[in-house]
Amino acid sequence: MFTTFTGGETGGWQVTRLETVTGEGLPTAPRMSIASGPQIPPQTAASWQLTAFASNVRYVERPEKERLAALQAPLGRPHATCAALIPIRKSQAWWEMTQDERRCVFEARSQHISYSLKYLPAIARQLYHCRDLDQPFDFLTWFEFAPIDANAFEDLVGYLRTTEEWRYVEREVDVRLVAAI
Amino acid sequence: MFTTFTGGETGGWQVTRLETVTGEGLPTAPRMSIASGPQIPPQTAASWQLTAFASNVRYVERPEKERLAALQAPLGRPHATCAALIPIRKSQAWWEMTQDERRCVFEARSQHISYSLKYLPAIARQLYHCRDLDQPFDFLTWFEFAPIDANAFEDLVGYLRTTEEWRYVEREVDVRLVAAI
Repeated sequence: MFTTFTGGETGGWQVTRLETVTGEGLPTAPRMSIASGPQIPPQTAASWQLTAFASNVRYVERPEKERLAALQAPLGRPHATCAALIPIRKSQAWWEMTQDERRCVFEARSQHISYSLKYLPAIARQLYHCRDLDQPFDFLTWFEFAPIDANAFEDLVGYLRTTEEWRYVEREVDVRLVAAI
Repeated sequence: MFTTFTGGETGGWQVTRLETVTGEGLPTAPRMSIASGPQIPPQTAASWQLTAFASNVRYVERPEKERLAALQAPLGRPHATCAALIPIRKSQAWWEMTQDERRCVFEARSQHISYSLKYLPAIARQLYHCRDLDQPFDFLTWFEFAPIDANAFEDLVGYLRTTEEWRYVEREVDVRLVAAI
């Protein structure tokens, strides 16, 4: 099952901000839609279209997996009217590391999981993978939260960008959205 | 980049044997072709069509990665006129394990990497992933070897099927081929 995020003139999410954090940006778009399906859709005339898949977890260990499962919230909560789509590409150096070396940077040295746990269940999140789909990014990271938790989300994103893991991020765009009612 | 294996009436590989090892099989086909491209091709009228992608390594650690890189042979050697395509699907129990738990079964308890190393460079191999593409298998494993190494390949496949890792294999088909000249 593929999930496609399309920036353009239509869609259930209104784009409130679109910032280039690192590397090449994305064109602006007033709206964004999300679609799921069994096929990668052909490129549309939209401003941009990014396709990825949810997959099995890659880094968490058993106690972390259980804590995440106990704490995390699902997508689609009615009060979570704020969202962020943060597409990310990591460098060749990241991908040349072995799994255990990446885990060491990701958690032992960057506390990606343990720091993020503090923001659950307020921030609902889903990671989508696209490196293997010949897409311009490696990951599409998606977050949903209530307006009251917007500052907490800034904390989390701000923290992650200071970590050793983030030195391997060579392209990052930050798209903020609100549910269009 | 996707790689598609198509069983049908045409193709550079002649199918010499097609056996169901576990679970549902695949229809017979006299020939098989291999194609690479940036898109998942639409389903053809062939007997079967399986698409997957090569990806970053998931289980090896640094010393293993270096030994593999030093020893392994590329695909396409002129004398490697024998091949095997072994599509595999693993069970839900496999995918519910965390990465480190899977690594433990894969290598510490099944010696998948260390045992396989003995067969390099005679057996050239490539792993393709397709679980995330909504395909009927999780992996397509591909092997090329010279006729003189056919017995060594039987040893390797026979060993792997006795391992703890293989208890998680719920569908497996074994397609043997020779280069059609």
